[in-house]
Amino acid sequence: MIADHLVTALETITGPAGIKTSEALRAIHPGSDPHNLDAGLMVLPKNVEQVSAIVKLCNDNRIAIVPHGGRTGLAGGAVSRKDEIILSLAALNRIESVEAAAETAIVECGVTLQALQEEAAKVNLTTGIDIPSRGSATIGGMISTNAGGMEAFRLGVMRQRVLGLEVVLPDGSIMSDLAEVTKSNEGYDLKQLFIGAEGTLGIVTRAVIRLTPADTFTATALVACPSAIAAVSLFQALRHDRSLRLLRTEIMGERYFRVAVEALGPASLAAFTEAPIYLIVETEGLDQQGAQSALENALGAAIENELVLDAIIAQSGKERNDIWNIREDSNVITRAYPNGYWFDISVPLQHLDAYIRQFDGGVASLGADVRGFAFGHLGDGNLHICVAGENGNPDKDAVKAVVYANIRQMGGSFSAEHGIGLEKMPELHALVDPVKLALMRTIKRTIDPNNIMNPGKVVS
Amino acid sequence: MIADHLVTALETITGPAGIKTSEALRAIHPGSDPHNLDAGLMVLPKNVEQVSAIVKLCNDNRIAIVPHGGRTGLAGGAVSRKDEIILSLAALNRIESVEAAAETAIVECGVTLQALQEEAAKVNLTTGIDIPSRGSATIGGMISTNAGGMEAFRLGVMRQRVLGLEVVLPDGSIMSDLAEVTKSNEGYDLKQLFIGAEGTLGIVTRAVIRLTPADTFTATALVACPSAIAAVSLFQALRHDRSLRLLRTEIMGERYFRVAVEALGPASLAAFTEAPIYLIVETEGLDQQGAQSALENALGAAIENELVLDAIIAQSGKERNDIWNIREDSNVITRAYPNGYWFDISVPLQHLDAYIRQFDGGVASLGADVRGFAFGHLGDGNLHICVAGENGNPDKDAVKAVVYANIRQMGGSFSAEHGIGLEKMPELHALVDPVKLALMRTIKRTIDPNNIMNPGKVVS
Repeated sequence: MIADHLVTALETITGPAGIKTSEALRAIHPGSDPHNLDAGLMVLPKNVEQVSAIVKLCNDNRIAIVPHGGRTGLAGGAVSRKDEIILSLAALNRIESVEAAAETAIVECGVTLQALQEEAAKVNLTTGIDIPSRGSATIGGMISTNAGGMEAFRLGVMRQRVLGLEVVLPDGSIMSDLAEVTKSNEGYDLKQLFIGAEGTLGIVTRAVIRLTPADTFTATALVACPSAIAAVSLFQALRHDRSLRLLRTEIMGERYFRVAVEALGPASLAAFTEAPIYLIVETEGLDQQGAQSALENALGAAIENELVLDAIIAQSGKERNDIWNIREDSNVITRAYPNGYWFDISVPLQHLDAYIRQFDGGVASLGADVRGFAFGHLGDGNLHICVAGENGNPDKDAVKAVVYANIRQMGGSFSAEHGIGLEKMPELHALVDPVKLALMRTIKRTIDPNNIMNPGKVVS
Repeated sequence: MIADHLVTALETITGPAGIKTSEALRAIHPGSDPHNLDAGLMVLPKNVEQVSAIVKLCNDNRIAIVPHGGRTGLAGGAVSRKDEIILSLAALNRIESVEAAAETAIVECGVTLQALQEEAAKVNLTTGIDIPSRGSATIGGMISTNAGGMEAFRLGVMRQRVLGLEVVLPDGSIMSDLAEVTKSNEGYDLKQLFIGAEGTLGIVTRAVIRLTPADTFTATALVACPSAIAAVSLFQALRHDRSLRLLRTEIMGERYFRVAVEALGPASLAAFTEAPIYLIVETEGLDQQGAQSALENALGAAIENELVLDAIIAQSGKERNDIWNIREDSNVITRAYPNGYWFDISVPLQHLDAYIRQFDGGVASLGADVRGFAFGHLGDGNLHICVAGENGNPDKDAVKAVVYANIRQMGGSFSAEHGIGLEKMPELHALVDPVKLALMRTIKRTIDPNNIMNPGKVVS
């Protein structure tokens, strides 16, 4: 536990409303991990100066800090322990500006993705990054985990959306690099170190975000493909089809699709053609009619070319939502298999079919009652995977051996978009280039010599 | 000079063909800076193992290394001195793979941009980054300077085109992070440190580059705008116009345009409507006819809305080349004013008009015979600027005060896309956040404790 005089010192910085313990803390939802609030003490600064003062106090007194955004992270990066403090950035929630022509926004890090999307929409812009947890996930958290989502294949991951950054370093100093321009080469681009560092090198407090023109007229289809090879060929064809703009291509393996559609409905989609691979394809056109007909033509040609078995194009907002719900409510798998092992990998598209075949074969070899579910973002080759047994889980290491087999040789990643946190540390130590790992440790010791920033996460 | 036994040791690594001195070196073009080859000794490794051995030898013997790509850099980053060696990556010039569906290429760092563009074109892809020096500039050099170019507003700068990187660190170890996927979060993204570091932290030897679908049917226009505000509004309108895809929007101030068009011709363009701001707008359409008519419609509407005074749409490849030549042969200014001072700034679009007004006023205040020329990339607010006197140059510090006035307050950058090298070091020290600058120095000392990597550039 943190000594009383230090709690008093923290309260002097934030005021009484900025300290939450016991009852007040128990009223807060712990988020994705039940241990996120275990520290029992949350500090809520209102501005960067307060963040700086808190971090300095903690550094001087060797108190470990666990930064919190929206607590939607899936790798345990926000888990806290008794001798630590939680530094919640929730009160830094101002959208400071949105520039329509420059396509930029300046935000404090506690702003949620959805709040920024809504503000940007007022000038016909959007964030260019979208994830299902948009209502809770904060820009600071998304920067710290380098979030990915559904549009990364064309607009990049969070790292590509950040133009400028303000960071509080572990000694309390404030590094300000708030350029609002795409082109700025002013020495080493140090802000990149803090993007994806999961709060282990400093605290992101403010950012300049690159926005992009909003999609106005979109068409959405559920597509059944005969194979992953066909799905990749369809993706390639749509990327080169100038009659439409490809916005999103989500992928679902047959097993995922069946569990999801049977749990979530509607019956019309549950009755859809059987296939090994399903896609949700979303495209944009010049107007609503043009968007629908361009997608219809493209999918018609793909059926001719045997890349597609069948397709349903949403004819209403409800039909669109029904299709998206199958993909976005992926908790449907957790509800069916609460103890399943989860993974978050990516493989280059030229290897996606081989990876899926290898995965299906590997899961079968784990036991007749073992199930593998895969879904994710086709354009990035990013699959979210759950492996679970109908009668108790198989050995976790055996499962990992299946999921990670050849992932390096294929040029893929064992950690696509959820980060390392606590959960992926064994993989990091086993699979990352040792020269890179050694340099990571050196950088951590150099920037955070007292190891106060989210200790025990990412590097050890 | 390097001691003979060390030259022998270097020759043992590369073989005799890998060492160039005296006559052999004088046969090589020095590139953008006459002092690039001053070291008098160039080593040309053939593969990463040779690079590693050379760097280790140099580190053990405290020999400074100046890495060379295509020697097209504009900030003096490749300048070398007598006691240093030049490490040319020109022989690492293999394109190892191009993946059509995944839109990636794996290349050795000495591959030129144009060679990669030509290879990618075979599968209807392109690099998503383009600069006039494409025939000489290498991928490694473009990574090391974080090159920008004409498409950055929609596809990012070089940093956004790099998926994976192999780097030789100053101790000779090889850091391999050759992920071929958009989504890879495996701890700190250390490759970012080496992108834009201008060879001061290590040597980029291999990269995975993200490609993008090639533009097939394009239309090109020369546009006269009544003001920078109108030009920015036109840019905004074109970004949101779904009947076309905006590829490039280059900007030229009146004074640049006049000097260029009168020197380069043709007469038809020299007779084009007078205006304070000229643009080259390039767009893509569904087919050739569609591309032309969509641009025609968009510019017609812009004339109605008083955003455009006049426009010429190229009707042939020759007309397109004539228009582009005015912008790409910007050496026309150097030929007219060989001693002019050059700058490379960027400002957010909402401040572009204010910046240009301030610049024009500032130049006028420097003397009646002082001329300011500005041109560059409208979408990024990136201006290349030359200030020169008709009768001898004004004081350089006075010119800098004009060019850099309010650039920070506007959220812009004093160093957009050419890098720091030697030339921008005074600006770096004067204008960069001191916390960032201190951390840059710490990082340099940590990674390159013997200061052998391109010493005296970027940080000091």
